[in-house]
Amino acid sequence: MSGFDYDLFVIGGGSGGVRSARVAASLGKKVAIAEEYRFGGTCVIRGCVPKKLFVYASQFHEHFEDATGFGWTVGETSFDWKALIEAKDKEIARLEGLYRKGLDNAGAEIIESRAELAGPNSVRILATGKVVTAERILIAVGGSANHHPALPGHEFCITSNEAFHLETLPRSILIAGGGYIAVEFANIFHGLGVETTLIYRGKEILSRFDHDLRQGLHQAMEAKGIRILCEDLIQEVSLTATGERLVKTKAHGELTVDAVMLALGRDPNTKGLGLETAGVATDDKGAIVVDDYSRTNVPGIFALGDVTDRVQLTPVAIHEAMCFIDTEYRGKPTRPDLDLIATAVFSQPEIGTVGLSEEAAAKKYPELEIYRAQFRPMKATLSGRQEKMIMKLVVDAASRKVVGAHILGHDAGEMAQLLGITLKAGCTKDDFDRTMAVHPTAAEELVTMYSPSYRIVNGERVG
Amino acid sequence: MSGFDYDLFVIGGGSGGVRSARVAASLGKKVAIAEEYRFGGTCVIRGCVPKKLFVYASQFHEHFEDATGFGWTVGETSFDWKALIEAKDKEIARLEGLYRKGLDNAGAEIIESRAELAGPNSVRILATGKVVTAERILIAVGGSANHHPALPGHEFCITSNEAFHLETLPRSILIAGGGYIAVEFANIFHGLGVETTLIYRGKEILSRFDHDLRQGLHQAMEAKGIRILCEDLIQEVSLTATGERLVKTKAHGELTVDAVMLALGRDPNTKGLGLETAGVATDDKGAIVVDDYSRTNVPGIFALGDVTDRVQLTPVAIHEAMCFIDTEYRGKPTRPDLDLIATAVFSQPEIGTVGLSEEAAAKKYPELEIYRAQFRPMKATLSGRQEKMIMKLVVDAASRKVVGAHILGHDAGEMAQLLGITLKAGCTKDDFDRTMAVHPTAAEELVTMYSPSYRIVNGERVG
Repeated sequence: MSGFDYDLFVIGGGSGGVRSARVAASLGKKVAIAEEYRFGGTCVIRGCVPKKLFVYASQFHEHFEDATGFGWTVGETSFDWKALIEAKDKEIARLEGLYRKGLDNAGAEIIESRAELAGPNSVRILATGKVVTAERILIAVGGSANHHPALPGHEFCITSNEAFHLETLPRSILIAGGGYIAVEFANIFHGLGVETTLIYRGKEILSRFDHDLRQGLHQAMEAKGIRILCEDLIQEVSLTATGERLVKTKAHGELTVDAVMLALGRDPNTKGLGLETAGVATDDKGAIVVDDYSRTNVPGIFALGDVTDRVQLTPVAIHEAMCFIDTEYRGKPTRPDLDLIATAVFSQPEIGTVGLSEEAAAKKYPELEIYRAQFRPMKATLSGRQEKMIMKLVVDAASRKVVGAHILGHDAGEMAQLLGITLKAGCTKDDFDRTMAVHPTAAEELVTMYSPSYRIVNGERVG
Repeated sequence: MSGFDYDLFVIGGGSGGVRSARVAASLGKKVAIAEEYRFGGTCVIRGCVPKKLFVYASQFHEHFEDATGFGWTVGETSFDWKALIEAKDKEIARLEGLYRKGLDNAGAEIIESRAELAGPNSVRILATGKVVTAERILIAVGGSANHHPALPGHEFCITSNEAFHLETLPRSILIAGGGYIAVEFANIFHGLGVETTLIYRGKEILSRFDHDLRQGLHQAMEAKGIRILCEDLIQEVSLTATGERLVKTKAHGELTVDAVMLALGRDPNTKGLGLETAGVATDDKGAIVVDDYSRTNVPGIFALGDVTDRVQLTPVAIHEAMCFIDTEYRGKPTRPDLDLIATAVFSQPEIGTVGLSEEAAAKKYPELEIYRAQFRPMKATLSGRQEKMIMKLVVDAASRKVVGAHILGHDAGEMAQLLGITLKAGCTKDDFDRTMAVHPTAAEELVTMYSPSYRIVNGERVG
């Protein structure tokens, strides 16, 4: 201790904050962590976890349909939205309890209050008004869905936050956005029986993903009945006499739906945090500016996770937390390594991807080999489901390294995780080729694509 | 051509034979391929493919059960065995057609007959009695289930062959064996509603697999209601007056069941093949003895796949075929690489594994780090299903190389395929550690096990 009330004061009880507080406390530091709402952060409370539970729920109707081709007869099925919400909330409460317990066991002090910076080494706890001091302050308050206040009628719209707590399941929904949140929720609602439309101003959903994934998912979603309106946007939303939402679009006229969900980006939660008081710099999006070691411009104040708007992913926040701990408390200065992050989109079909898209790789390497397979998964042969799996490897011809791996289809996320290891380790296409297939799997396709489908030479497709 | 009727005569239309014939023909060789039954071999006709289709069919009842926890109500379900068989047979016929078409398109001559060696360079086609000559003869006739003729009452038992064509689904079945075929079918029949018992003379099912997988699967199977009798065997089977099978076991008394399936190993199909006539050597199991290049002791006669009893897997036969082609027709002598073959057991839960078990690694390396995680998959939190996933990495402490990776749980086979690449490429535990997690997936556990669960030093468990 060095004259401060705490060695470390963490503001924000999400993935990055909890990890930092827990590990610092377990190292014997005097730690407090303040959270104004619930521990677990976006991931646990209103992000990854409830989202994936919804994804599971929304997949069952396909299981019921698929069963027929395998000799099953399934009686009438029905879905109870409230039962799902209750089950989900119970699980989230359990997880939140685990987060608290972890903090408790490590000896961190839990403060159930909003906290704001009161100066370089001091924090005001709003519930009590008390100001405490800390040698180090870590800001890990995350981000939140943009409510798009400039949109006329935005007050009649929901975001993903509200989607997790809707009183009733809408009969129809319009989702605005083309990112992974918009796409995942479109598939969730459709899978639960909601008439679903996606509206996105870009030319194609999921910008920056490999074009095969973008087109493949778009087609698959449309094929199962999700309407996708690209190069269009919502101009105005109003309430009808019967409580529906009347939506004026720029290019597709008027739509009437039960609900409108905006998935138009997320903003760092930096408002009213006392950043100005303490002199902490933010960028033009309001994100806290940090260096490679998650240090803000003010000595003793650090920030990590979504509030810094580097890569908005749970594992990244946790990784940044572990680097912060190594740097500040273990004498091992460690920079977060944000290169080659594998990610999944839990759409249906799922996306798993790591490394460069074909387009990005073409700008970086003079010659690429593209290995691409599109096939019907075995289960679909009997279920009769019209779906195609896509697998694609982007290989730098000179080094033979696999620089991008992209999958659309079942278990793509699980596969992306393990492909992530191979890219991180710098595995070559020859390493893939030397690997014996596991039969019958879908992933075996990734080790049996022996000839390039085509090449990209100086940015131009050849063959 | 060199005075022979054919450049290459292939006996046997399974995975290895068809691949060899097709590729040799596509290289301009004059090729014939003889098959007495159906093209596709064990894999397509009565192995991997129909087995996996049965696995899918047997998983639906769990989907129906799981749905409840996610808010679904599912009406009465029923299963029609004949409908599954018909659907499966239709798909198998389609695949067989593709095999034939591939051979046709490449210009290989298809001979629908049993063929036997008539001498070093000659083959007798039984359907016509004609004897033809070939510069090279490739024997790829595979293996078949051992019917265990020494067992009294074996004629009242079936093997996996018959399991694919049973007229009716038995109400109860006893499966003898502890290998992957026995285990897979036990799970299939149980999943389709059959009262299932497994009997195996060994101490634990799946010998040579990692002990955590063996015990974990055993427990999971028992937990869902499959009876497992280890250290026991069938002594006699007889028919009851009502058509059931009365089984005398050595240790568990008498059992009465509708069907008894023997999954007690497979034998090479070398009987009556003219091997003696041609002077081709076999081992004491009847398998054809070959060198590293799939050459028998008789010049010009080659053998590959299950008939050589190296590693009885489809991808291995195909790999041996490609090595044979490279060696004999492309001037590139190539030895099959049978090191670090990843495999899956399509049990429920599934097994995926590559490299050394903990036990085998402990004999090879002075110090091991064992990383082991056992957890409830996210879907099970709402479904309420009592299942645990196991993930395990065996790491050579000196080199940091991952020398074994073992998974029990959903998608284990898909994961094993990709872990296979990492082991083949010699990836280290540090490569795993440096990889960012993909959240929420099951596979992320494999890159977030930072501390060893325990060590094995000179064969002894430490810590």
